[in-house]
Amino acid sequence: MKKLVNDPKNVVDEAVAGFGAAHGDIVRVSLDPVFIVRTDAPVSGKVGIVSGGGSGHEPLHGGFVGLGMLDAAVPGAVFTSPTPDPILAATKAVDGGAGVLHIVKNYTGDVLNFETAADLAAADDIEVRSVIVDDDVAVKDSLYTAGRRGVAGTVLVEKIAGAAAERGDDLDTVATVAEKVIGRVRSMGVALTPCVVPHAGEPSFTLADDEIEIGIGIHGEPGRERIKMEPADAIVDRILGPILEDLPVTAGDKVLLFVNGMGGTPQVELYIVFRRAAEVLADRGIEVTRTLVGNFTTSLEMQGMSITVLTLDDELTTLWDAPVHTAALRWGK
Amino acid sequence: MKKLVNDPKNVVDEAVAGFGAAHGDIVRVSLDPVFIVRTDAPVSGKVGIVSGGGSGHEPLHGGFVGLGMLDAAVPGAVFTSPTPDPILAATKAVDGGAGVLHIVKNYTGDVLNFETAADLAAADDIEVRSVIVDDDVAVKDSLYTAGRRGVAGTVLVEKIAGAAAERGDDLDTVATVAEKVIGRVRSMGVALTPCVVPHAGEPSFTLADDEIEIGIGIHGEPGRERIKMEPADAIVDRILGPILEDLPVTAGDKVLLFVNGMGGTPQVELYIVFRRAAEVLADRGIEVTRTLVGNFTTSLEMQGMSITVLTLDDELTTLWDAPVHTAALRWGK
Repeated sequence: MKKLVNDPKNVVDEAVAGFGAAHGDIVRVSLDPVFIVRTDAPVSGKVGIVSGGGSGHEPLHGGFVGLGMLDAAVPGAVFTSPTPDPILAATKAVDGGAGVLHIVKNYTGDVLNFETAADLAAADDIEVRSVIVDDDVAVKDSLYTAGRRGVAGTVLVEKIAGAAAERGDDLDTVATVAEKVIGRVRSMGVALTPCVVPHAGEPSFTLADDEIEIGIGIHGEPGRERIKMEPADAIVDRILGPILEDLPVTAGDKVLLFVNGMGGTPQVELYIVFRRAAEVLADRGIEVTRTLVGNFTTSLEMQGMSITVLTLDDELTTLWDAPVHTAALRWGK
Repeated sequence: MKKLVNDPKNVVDEAVAGFGAAHGDIVRVSLDPVFIVRTDAPVSGKVGIVSGGGSGHEPLHGGFVGLGMLDAAVPGAVFTSPTPDPILAATKAVDGGAGVLHIVKNYTGDVLNFETAADLAAADDIEVRSVIVDDDVAVKDSLYTAGRRGVAGTVLVEKIAGAAAERGDDLDTVATVAEKVIGRVRSMGVALTPCVVPHAGEPSFTLADDEIEIGIGIHGEPGRERIKMEPADAIVDRILGPILEDLPVTAGDKVLLFVNGMGGTPQVELYIVFRRAAEVLADRGIEVTRTLVGNFTTSLEMQGMSITVLTLDDELTTLWDAPVHTAALRWGK
């Protein structure tokens, strides 16, 4: 294993410390328990938003802490859910009196640990609502998951719910906005190579030199099928098909098209993918009015990508465009 | 070779087309000849700034086209200099009557082709000035280069010179600011893995499973030495040492610390590197007042990173903080 780490046990602690040192204008970090919080938290009267999950998907979630997005992020060990303790601490740290929304990716461990933390917070008189993101159309039930997995669509939920909270919406409204995004966002991914979890030291799965996994999960969970390598356009068609079958979208609709890198794929390849995906949508009469391209929900150094499509309306577009100021996403202010 | 490409011959054209489709609010793209230009170019009365070089280092340079940074970028084939033709076309496209600055990384092909384009532009009565970035302290003279190579420090030159042009500085002043950055910026990198150029189909070099290359070039050119894998902190110390030996910096100075991913390295590792680098600088009494962490000057899917340090003063800090609105770097507006 060749990785830029010291002791594999300390990867998350050292990375979070480095993140805090690099972005002290945006976040504060706590190392015991581990969480990342925006510098001005708690914002009085504002709904706090907390997300989290296993590390190794950066910039998700810590890179999205800041004005207009998350109030706090709770990173677990690599590919491992955070325990209730740091989730509770983060929830308390962002409670400005208007309640807290938990944005949870649909993995059994995450769902359970966020639920426990929410119960503990309620005992402390903090009102918590939770939404579960399950945008991955690849498989129903999987390693670590009952139902669909939550993947890159989470970024869009965090951005849009974050904007709703920032403009002063109450907890019910912010939760409703988040649910609206979840109802309209679908994703699917492909892996060209596996990745190595630092404390495991071995690839989490293997793929032959000419083989790819269609519908991969962000922890390397099995997808729909393994096939021989194909040209990029053919792969895009394979992935976009199931997304569009499932997505509530019709000709004339406007969408946000998000091409996400899994961590180890060069940017030129992501734009080749974007080009084809935009073509396919145009052919179906679907108008791409907002875009996002880059490594936003990664699986360490995995090569591959996912495509996410969100059906927009005026409200979601306005919230997407609203100012955001985080380490990984920044505009409008 | 597993890559998300169609025909390897079309990688740059398709990626540039995708880039244009994704970022039409910021850039227009030309496919024959290939260049990327900000939507409002030429900006009348503003110095135009053009950079370029071989593709495969994205987001350098196309990702930095936009308000407050580059007016145009000229991508060559992967790891191959663009020819004078597209450089000339880009230069013409951004000439707003105040002259054009070429920011050129120090590779023999780039220097020659930008020089030829500048001569042709002069024949068309466009005043062109050029600056050569050679921030890599790893080696003097290398494959493709006489003198030091230009690497990730180029991003800082482009940002700061771009801000000077945007505030209305004349060509001489913008060139002087760019030279000032070049005089104060130093970089060095390390590779854990090689990368595969799509039209070659084979890794550009090989490294054993326990071996890394200290001082790697961004095209995989040889560095200072190959050593056995070490902990991240030890690698950081090896790289930061030569940078600080060469950099004009003393205790009490303020610096910008930039940890750059080579394309295939997980973000957690970049922050582990940042943490140690910031520690070393603090120990020497050097104050890190600005930071940048991420994949900004890549070598396709290479795993590894480079560290860049820029000694700041008030002017450079102000220009760094000035608004920028590009695909890859965005703040303040």
